[in-house]
Amino acid sequence: MCEANAYLIKNKENEKELIMESVDTIEPEEGGLLIINIFGEQKFIKAKIHSLSLVDHNIYLMQESAAC
Amino acid sequence: MCEANAYLIKNKENEKELIMESVDTIEPEEGGLLIINIFGEQKFIKAKIHSLSLVDHNIYLMQESAAC
Repeated sequence: MCEANAYLIKNKENEKELIMESVDTIEPEEGGLLIINIFGEQKFIKAKIHSLSLVDHNIYLMQESAAC
Repeated sequence: MCEANAYLIKNKENEKELIMESVDTIEPEEGGLLIINIFGEQKFIKAKIHSLSLVDHNIYLMQESAAC
């Protein structure tokens, strides 16, 4: 299997919070992301996908910046 | 290995263009994304990460919308 763990980057010191393990799909939905793991569990988080490191099985999410 | 193929979603009809195979990392960089595959090859693309389907080994990118 090729699932990964989704972490939310919490601040500029790169502190991370594990949001969900064994993530299969991430889809944009209504101002955030719908995350679904290989067991079919779902989580919604108001964030965007920041970066990926797939060989390490890591997905990094970040809260939407207020840049607009 | 747990790499994936990165596709650019080209329009609302979901037409896709393969950007890079065997992607390991994607990092934000200067208004776009730096994509690196497991062979160390790099590509820069002015887009954001739209969605993921890791069990299918797919990463979908999209041009930045002009929403701002």
